[in-house]
Amino acid sequence: MPKIIGHNYIGGARSAVGTVTLHSHDASSGEALPFVFTQATAAEVDAAAQAAASAYPAFRALSANRRAEFLEAIAAQLDALDDDFIALVTRETALPTGRIQGERARTSGQMRLFAQVLRRGDFHGARIDRALPERQPLPRVDLRQYRIGVGPVAVFGASNFPLAFSTAGGDTAAALAAGCPVVFKAHSGHMATAEQVADAIIRAAEQTDMPKGVFNMIYGAGVGEALVKHPAIQAVGFTGSLAGGRALCDMAAARPQPIPVFAEMSSINPVLVLPEALQLRGEKIARELVASVVQGCGQFCTNPGLVMGIASPRFTAFTALLSALMNEQPAQTMLNAGTLRSYRNGVQALLEHPGVSHLAGKPQQGNQAQPQLFKADVSLLFNGDPLLQEEVFGPTSVVIEVADNAELQQALRSLHGQLTATLIAEAGDLQRYGELLPLLEQKVGRVLFNGYPTGVEVGDAMVHGGPYPATSDARGTSVGSLAIERFLRPVCYQNCPDALLPEALQNANPLGISRLVDGHHQRTPL
Amino acid sequence: MPKIIGHNYIGGARSAVGTVTLHSHDASSGEALPFVFTQATAAEVDAAAQAAASAYPAFRALSANRRAEFLEAIAAQLDALDDDFIALVTRETALPTGRIQGERARTSGQMRLFAQVLRRGDFHGARIDRALPERQPLPRVDLRQYRIGVGPVAVFGASNFPLAFSTAGGDTAAALAAGCPVVFKAHSGHMATAEQVADAIIRAAEQTDMPKGVFNMIYGAGVGEALVKHPAIQAVGFTGSLAGGRALCDMAAARPQPIPVFAEMSSINPVLVLPEALQLRGEKIARELVASVVQGCGQFCTNPGLVMGIASPRFTAFTALLSALMNEQPAQTMLNAGTLRSYRNGVQALLEHPGVSHLAGKPQQGNQAQPQLFKADVSLLFNGDPLLQEEVFGPTSVVIEVADNAELQQALRSLHGQLTATLIAEAGDLQRYGELLPLLEQKVGRVLFNGYPTGVEVGDAMVHGGPYPATSDARGTSVGSLAIERFLRPVCYQNCPDALLPEALQNANPLGISRLVDGHHQRTPL
Repeated sequence: MPKIIGHNYIGGARSAVGTVTLHSHDASSGEALPFVFTQATAAEVDAAAQAAASAYPAFRALSANRRAEFLEAIAAQLDALDDDFIALVTRETALPTGRIQGERARTSGQMRLFAQVLRRGDFHGARIDRALPERQPLPRVDLRQYRIGVGPVAVFGASNFPLAFSTAGGDTAAALAAGCPVVFKAHSGHMATAEQVADAIIRAAEQTDMPKGVFNMIYGAGVGEALVKHPAIQAVGFTGSLAGGRALCDMAAARPQPIPVFAEMSSINPVLVLPEALQLRGEKIARELVASVVQGCGQFCTNPGLVMGIASPRFTAFTALLSALMNEQPAQTMLNAGTLRSYRNGVQALLEHPGVSHLAGKPQQGNQAQPQLFKADVSLLFNGDPLLQEEVFGPTSVVIEVADNAELQQALRSLHGQLTATLIAEAGDLQRYGELLPLLEQKVGRVLFNGYPTGVEVGDAMVHGGPYPATSDARGTSVGSLAIERFLRPVCYQNCPDALLPEALQNANPLGISRLVDGHHQRTPL
Repeated sequence: MPKIIGHNYIGGARSAVGTVTLHSHDASSGEALPFVFTQATAAEVDAAAQAAASAYPAFRALSANRRAEFLEAIAAQLDALDDDFIALVTRETALPTGRIQGERARTSGQMRLFAQVLRRGDFHGARIDRALPERQPLPRVDLRQYRIGVGPVAVFGASNFPLAFSTAGGDTAAALAAGCPVVFKAHSGHMATAEQVADAIIRAAEQTDMPKGVFNMIYGAGVGEALVKHPAIQAVGFTGSLAGGRALCDMAAARPQPIPVFAEMSSINPVLVLPEALQLRGEKIARELVASVVQGCGQFCTNPGLVMGIASPRFTAFTALLSALMNEQPAQTMLNAGTLRSYRNGVQALLEHPGVSHLAGKPQQGNQAQPQLFKADVSLLFNGDPLLQEEVFGPTSVVIEVADNAELQQALRSLHGQLTATLIAEAGDLQRYGELLPLLEQKVGRVLFNGYPTGVEVGDAMVHGGPYPATSDARGTSVGSLAIERFLRPVCYQNCPDALLPEALQNANPLGISRLVDGHHQRTPL
């Protein structure tokens, strides 16, 4: 058994002064695991935020290279976690061993990606306009700009990625890379996992001599509200439901000092299957699409929840094949009882809707999720029916048939913001339906061609974002290296003596980074 | 007399279906000018937002070069406005002719700066991660990312910069550069000026064949609320009071789809006068500081509203000199009656505060603003007294004396967010008080050394921003080329055929821009 004491992580120490306790559960059996977690009190939430605030001046003052070493040490600590850890995560989440091993590699990979970003140095956003003392009618002063971390960041992890979007996940990595200490709210679905990962982060922080309070973690239900409202917190990262994310946005906006919230919330990720592709490889598409819908029990933010095609005998046959394939899919265990309850309610709402017909899937009962397929009338989209706009989290999808290209465009215009949209299309389709692309660009963060949205590559070019309600701010991404920009803000120095400037802005360019100098990008010293 | 018809600008046409009319006024005499403006009706606000939404797909699809030509045409139209125009602006604002001529040059200069940004191409944020089909355990797909305009932007201009922060001002320039059509709410303080500038923009739009609706303008009191709440509007730019800006933020956050608001609001811009500088050039500093406080009747966002120094006989003498100099400053006419009323109230509140003493200035009466100097006890800062945190807009400043370095640091920690902070310091001061700089960086958008904050250079490196309440989002700037980033969001393409990619992301790199390819910045074609 791993050593799990269930105390909150505050300023490099552990604290459990409260009396409310919580258990984590075996996701498959529902039984409580023998670990007790002590919910943070109001005073502990305050202490965690204060610890992060105390760490901020020292942490942001560290060189980018030192922060990169910290992230790499976290990566190494994650990679070093043993099989008992993997077994613990699978027990708390019902996710298979191979998936958790892969997700662990992704999580340490994210840390290393941000270390690369720190060493590349473009995140500094260094800009220099040198003085022009002879300029007419007025001389120009010397102005230099770079970016610093905004301050302590509160992070709320996701249930569905217990590693990659949780304690040491993408938001934590981006915030730490930006020089922002983190207060992490442990997800109730995998608290023992959270503790093991937090221990790994703390070991890395000690190894690399980071300020105490650079990473803090609190347990408990309802502690998130006090955290988001705490004056020391300067930004929020969240992955979860629309209701939960919006509640945090509203709290953050109502603070005496409003702060930005980057919430990744709800997306139904439309997949458009166009005629030529359907004709050439309809069966293959059906198999791939069903596999994408049920993969990981459909518990992905980018799960394809809407399949659209243009009415034709071929699309009718495609829908029949989708139904037959979906009927063959086995039930799967979900992340936890709450997730299964939500899925059951979502499926029930679709079953009861007069504009929706049930195409495939066994009755939803018992302790596992039954894959389902529905068909909805396109008028539901035109009329803004909320049932077709909000994600049903789990292995289900809805087919929509449109009469023609014009109706397809109208349907896409009716959609809310999405993380992804996918075009399954041949060259002739793309020529014929070329106007779809600009339309989709306005609706989503990522447009895919002939792929399925459930794989989210972590790299420089990924966007895991999109207009509301996919996220609360379309200008960010929560996957990939651009995520660091959410937690940075520019600061400008006017006529600052060279010795007092940050290294990124000094004449000698000691970091050797690319800088925008008098309107031109260059690496040369001044 | 210029031709002013006072109709709203909607989709390239003029509209005045309402019955509520407004007049602009001669700022010096208070008399109504012979121009009638028709307040936009709810239907007209809707039509203006819809016109911007209709223009968005075509406008954002234009090449950056075409948008640059539009901005340059606006600049040329502004430069071509004649002496009658300058006379009109001075009449509506009581700002002197030389200032308005300079501001006009600044306004057209801003347009040209953003044209440069568009041609430089780094605003695209182009990132390419090429496919790695052989990668283990999973192949990597081809991912490409660039940034597009967020959609129609609502802009609220400032009273104090009738050109540079108004109709064709910085926010409008940044939004248009980003590919976002604009709906501008004309400021009630200079509606005739707004009309002449809007005409110039429309002429430029027609010359360069921009889509109708790329720029719209509405008149009226209270029309801003409907604009910010309109579903087509995707972001807001605002310069003005804390109360006004916060109200817009709250409205935007409460929308079904929340949108970002970039409001530049309230700053008291502390100036720290350190001992060695005081000893070497105290008299010069006093003269420069008083000049900065009363410049343009103190009507600058960066007006130095707080002067801080360490108690000493020399600082006492400095304060006395400041008082004597302030007593010599003439009264000046403010922008309009509302501004004068606010100034009178602000001065009165300072006079009545038991912790504040009046050092200099004639009784505030009549139609002009009397320059004033006050002294406040530092305990007011420690106790968070709101009077010392919010800007009194006009020619006034407050001196605060601290006992020592520790008290100075405590005072700075007590400050809210600011646009600027200034260190008046010699080398010895900077050595002795070196810890002040990291503290100030956390509080402000721009730190100045031995200058005065009232000049705001427009360039790549300027930051006119800062933590709340200086602005509503410290991650932006409303002056300088970085301002474009507020109105851009990333979009990602996965396995997109080269011919369908935007030029910024095509293999051949037809724009010749620098791109982040597989983690390295390069301009070479792929």
